[in-house]
Amino acid sequence: MTTVDYAEYFANKREGQLNELQEWLRIPSISALSEHKEDVNRAAKWLADTLTRAGLEHVEIFPTEGHPVVYADHLHAPGKPTVLIYGHYDVQPVDPLHLWETPPFEPAIRDNKLYARGATDDKGQLFLHVLALRSILEQEGKLPVNVKLCIEGEEEITSPNLPGFLDVHKDKLAADMVLISDTELMGPDKPAICTGLRGLCSLDVAVYTAKTDMHSGTYGGGVPNALHAIVSLLNTLHDEKGRVSVAGFYDDVPDLTPAVRKELAKRVVDTDELKEMLGLHDLFGEEGYTYVEQVGARPTLELNGVYGGFQGEGTKTVIPREAHAKITCRLVGQQKPQDILDKIEAHLHAHCPPGSKLEIVQRERGNPFDMNPDTPILQKAADAFEQVYGARPVFTKDGGSIPIIEALSRIVSAPVVLMGFGLPDENLHAPNEHFHLENFDKGLLTLVDFLHRI
Amino acid sequence: MTTVDYAEYFANKREGQLNELQEWLRIPSISALSEHKEDVNRAAKWLADTLTRAGLEHVEIFPTEGHPVVYADHLHAPGKPTVLIYGHYDVQPVDPLHLWETPPFEPAIRDNKLYARGATDDKGQLFLHVLALRSILEQEGKLPVNVKLCIEGEEEITSPNLPGFLDVHKDKLAADMVLISDTELMGPDKPAICTGLRGLCSLDVAVYTAKTDMHSGTYGGGVPNALHAIVSLLNTLHDEKGRVSVAGFYDDVPDLTPAVRKELAKRVVDTDELKEMLGLHDLFGEEGYTYVEQVGARPTLELNGVYGGFQGEGTKTVIPREAHAKITCRLVGQQKPQDILDKIEAHLHAHCPPGSKLEIVQRERGNPFDMNPDTPILQKAADAFEQVYGARPVFTKDGGSIPIIEALSRIVSAPVVLMGFGLPDENLHAPNEHFHLENFDKGLLTLVDFLHRI
Repeated sequence: MTTVDYAEYFANKREGQLNELQEWLRIPSISALSEHKEDVNRAAKWLADTLTRAGLEHVEIFPTEGHPVVYADHLHAPGKPTVLIYGHYDVQPVDPLHLWETPPFEPAIRDNKLYARGATDDKGQLFLHVLALRSILEQEGKLPVNVKLCIEGEEEITSPNLPGFLDVHKDKLAADMVLISDTELMGPDKPAICTGLRGLCSLDVAVYTAKTDMHSGTYGGGVPNALHAIVSLLNTLHDEKGRVSVAGFYDDVPDLTPAVRKELAKRVVDTDELKEMLGLHDLFGEEGYTYVEQVGARPTLELNGVYGGFQGEGTKTVIPREAHAKITCRLVGQQKPQDILDKIEAHLHAHCPPGSKLEIVQRERGNPFDMNPDTPILQKAADAFEQVYGARPVFTKDGGSIPIIEALSRIVSAPVVLMGFGLPDENLHAPNEHFHLENFDKGLLTLVDFLHRI
Repeated sequence: MTTVDYAEYFANKREGQLNELQEWLRIPSISALSEHKEDVNRAAKWLADTLTRAGLEHVEIFPTEGHPVVYADHLHAPGKPTVLIYGHYDVQPVDPLHLWETPPFEPAIRDNKLYARGATDDKGQLFLHVLALRSILEQEGKLPVNVKLCIEGEEEITSPNLPGFLDVHKDKLAADMVLISDTELMGPDKPAICTGLRGLCSLDVAVYTAKTDMHSGTYGGGVPNALHAIVSLLNTLHDEKGRVSVAGFYDDVPDLTPAVRKELAKRVVDTDELKEMLGLHDLFGEEGYTYVEQVGARPTLELNGVYGGFQGEGTKTVIPREAHAKITCRLVGQQKPQDILDKIEAHLHAHCPPGSKLEIVQRERGNPFDMNPDTPILQKAADAFEQVYGARPVFTKDGGSIPIIEALSRIVSAPVVLMGFGLPDENLHAPNEHFHLENFDKGLLTLVDFLHRI
């Protein structure tokens, strides 16, 4: 361990470190939107420069077919394990913009929370690693372990190019463990180590019924309406009880054993509080499962966007020629993204309404991920959390997806430690994303402790 | 009748007259969008100035709570009937803009067709009246009848303020007939006089399930999705055979008698040609009715817009908190717009999915309109058409709505003559709206003939 008083050290440095983070958050590195390509590059450059200044070595920005990967290392602890830190510097789109209280790329601190797109997912959490490494180097002149960083810019578009990068640079990235902070605590002072993540796949559906929009008076009643068609098509995807109706969708979903259900039940969710926090009129999910099971251990098929026809003020008497839907699925167990995509595509074609033509684009794919909580390195991570937070973390299964994690654990052949410092109500992927700064402070100490503890 | 050779006269003036019309079409007088309020005013001013220069009298722009009404008259034919010409100078919105071959407010003539928003609906057709009156005054020094014009700027938003205006100015607008050109020929050289129009009502539906958009990983499977809710709600509005499922919707729809069916069958629609023209994969309508019956004599409930969630490029793993739909109905027989709106609203509330709250805004209302083809003035209009087009017009029922027509016929207490010069494939309310200029030429001659014939 170390004799440095990092709590005092970080308290003194806090303002400057937060200013640095805000500088990074000002760069709108939205990976999904091609008009932000240069911003994504700028965010990568900012990170590489910061790592260089921090004393990391072999800092390099690797171009890919999409957005670049930032690599750095510090390998001066012979005989010690090697930690590969993964994270991402890209962020989600920001619409609907009008719901943000302050602009998404003008970071603002209110009530000890830092508001900005990327504040918690993932620039804010990733920056904790940068600061932890820099601080140890500054205070102790060396790191207690060997460290490699592999930071990508395509996580929010499901990492299309990282698996290829990992394959090519497998030797360079060889490590004894992968360390990631892109998950959540269970609540304030309730740390958690995520041992499972759902897989993901996504597709776009377009329905076309005519070559032109039509006047609803002249033609209304005698021609197909693309919106009627897409509504009737999308309505076939679930039954009334919230179960996905696509044939074979649940084929590779394991039954929840009593043991698994007991483990999952350790995560206590106050559903009244949850409803209050999200402003829900009611919860809604697949019958026969608890909320924690629904979001952690059951697959989903969600409509993320539906649009067609007139969206302006007032009335437009038009019969739209086309309508669109964006769909993602969260996968569990042995569900394979490509298999699920193919099953959904077959379902959509089988239910295509009369007079309609479909165009389907399959998009992202990521396998589900699962780890055994008894793995020794996970127990060490739990020790570090307990040291700083005063409570032993629960081993959870998170409903989210970091599709690349399964690939990382497979290609690097090492256990993945998910030490997240976000909180569930931080609006990630939504307006007013923010990061609770008490977890900025505790996160730094936890990571420094963990690096010394390995 | 007259001895002037108007065919030669108009041929000589054609280029200048088309230039004038294009000047008017350049003004984006979209009544539905508040940011175009000034443009709507400019279009009214342009019309008033043009009428003044044409020799019309008492030209006046009457403000309303919405967009203004332009009035003018020429009352120097004592003992002759008075014709009230109605039309509208406002236009529909233009999206989706990317489907226009040339910009909607930069008029372009291609292949003897004039392309612009408003080219046929209704600036182009209304301008024929202005030119007819101006030309007769210029050539003959006087008009063969008394004429009043009442031209509004809110037709495309269903004339919220005109009924009130008509009521207040009932005496000023007193007339023996109302003349309108805002309907269609049956085809090139197949004139038609519309004796029936469907009524209209519209409403907006919003579904709210949460106070914030949510991450589809963290919450997916356990919370309601506003898009799932709206899809399931909207899907209850029709059965699989295209019939509206709202209770009581068809209560006031008259059965189609054999006589009415025979009259309607005179309008021959080549459905293969129609499918080709509109790029339809198939027709789709209420079972048990012909296409002509479906669009002319049966009511509809159409989705004109549906939207919610992410619409950008790529994928966004969001569970949207809200979703929206825009709905219009075409009404026939004794259906009352307010009654239908109330029935739909009751249906939506009755089918509101779990976890959802609805907000419904009722919008426009217009009664259906119906006339007997045997009315003498309609026969005179038919004579004028026959004179110019060489074919006697068919008396049709049009599926569209000019909601104000029923109010005009009721408040002015006079027969309404619908002499339309549009063609069914002119993309009104859609991208690439255009006006076939052979009907610009023939329309002028028909109107001049009709005014002399009354």
